[in-house]
Amino acid sequence: MIANTPKTPYYAVIFTSIRTEGDNDYAAMADKMVKLAAKQAGFLGIESARNTVGITVSYWDSLESIKNWKLNMEHTVVREKGRREWYEKFKVRISKVERDYGFNKTN
Amino acid sequence: MIANTPKTPYYAVIFTSIRTEGDNDYAAMADKMVKLAAKQAGFLGIESARNTVGITVSYWDSLESIKNWKLNMEHTVVREKGRREWYEKFKVRISKVERDYGFNKTN
Repeated sequence: MIANTPKTPYYAVIFTSIRTEGDNDYAAMADKMVKLAAKQAGFLGIESARNTVGITVSYWDSLESIKNWKLNMEHTVVREKGRREWYEKFKVRISKVERDYGFNKTN
Repeated sequence: MIANTPKTPYYAVIFTSIRTEGDNDYAAMADKMVKLAAKQAGFLGIESARNTVGITVSYWDSLESIKNWKLNMEHTVVREKGRREWYEKFKVRISKVERDYGFNKTN
């Protein structure tokens, strides 16, 4: 799904990661975290894909909403598990979307 | 591969897409475009993954470098083909990376 984001500006958190071997309950927890993120104030949408590298981009209305999501207790516990078990490496980039445009063949 | 980007700020172009059926020379051309992008002034790196949705994030030193890459003749021709043949829909988001941090288990 391509996220149906509002008019710019808004914020994007680009999370790029390389997983460790094996699932170790990762898929279920990732799914749970997406559902939890979607309930947070200021959440605008999320896009995700994984091959060798995984990329998840979540969209937010403000830096404050991003910070609140980072401070969410359940999310914090899961992030710690991510560092211990699920990720070989990752990078988080917090960015401000200044301009966007789209294309839809069927429109 | 996680892109080895420099100190913030820099720019990210988040390209999210849904493909049409069949390859239609897409894979070869996508590979060629990555190589061509990497030769452009101001290119900092690229990350890509695809399942149902494809996400490619390219990183640049400035909005001007992004504009020059958009105006590149070969890239322009290929983008037109993308609209005709390869993409059902896509969204392009141009964003300024204000903060980043990473994790590496082996470090």
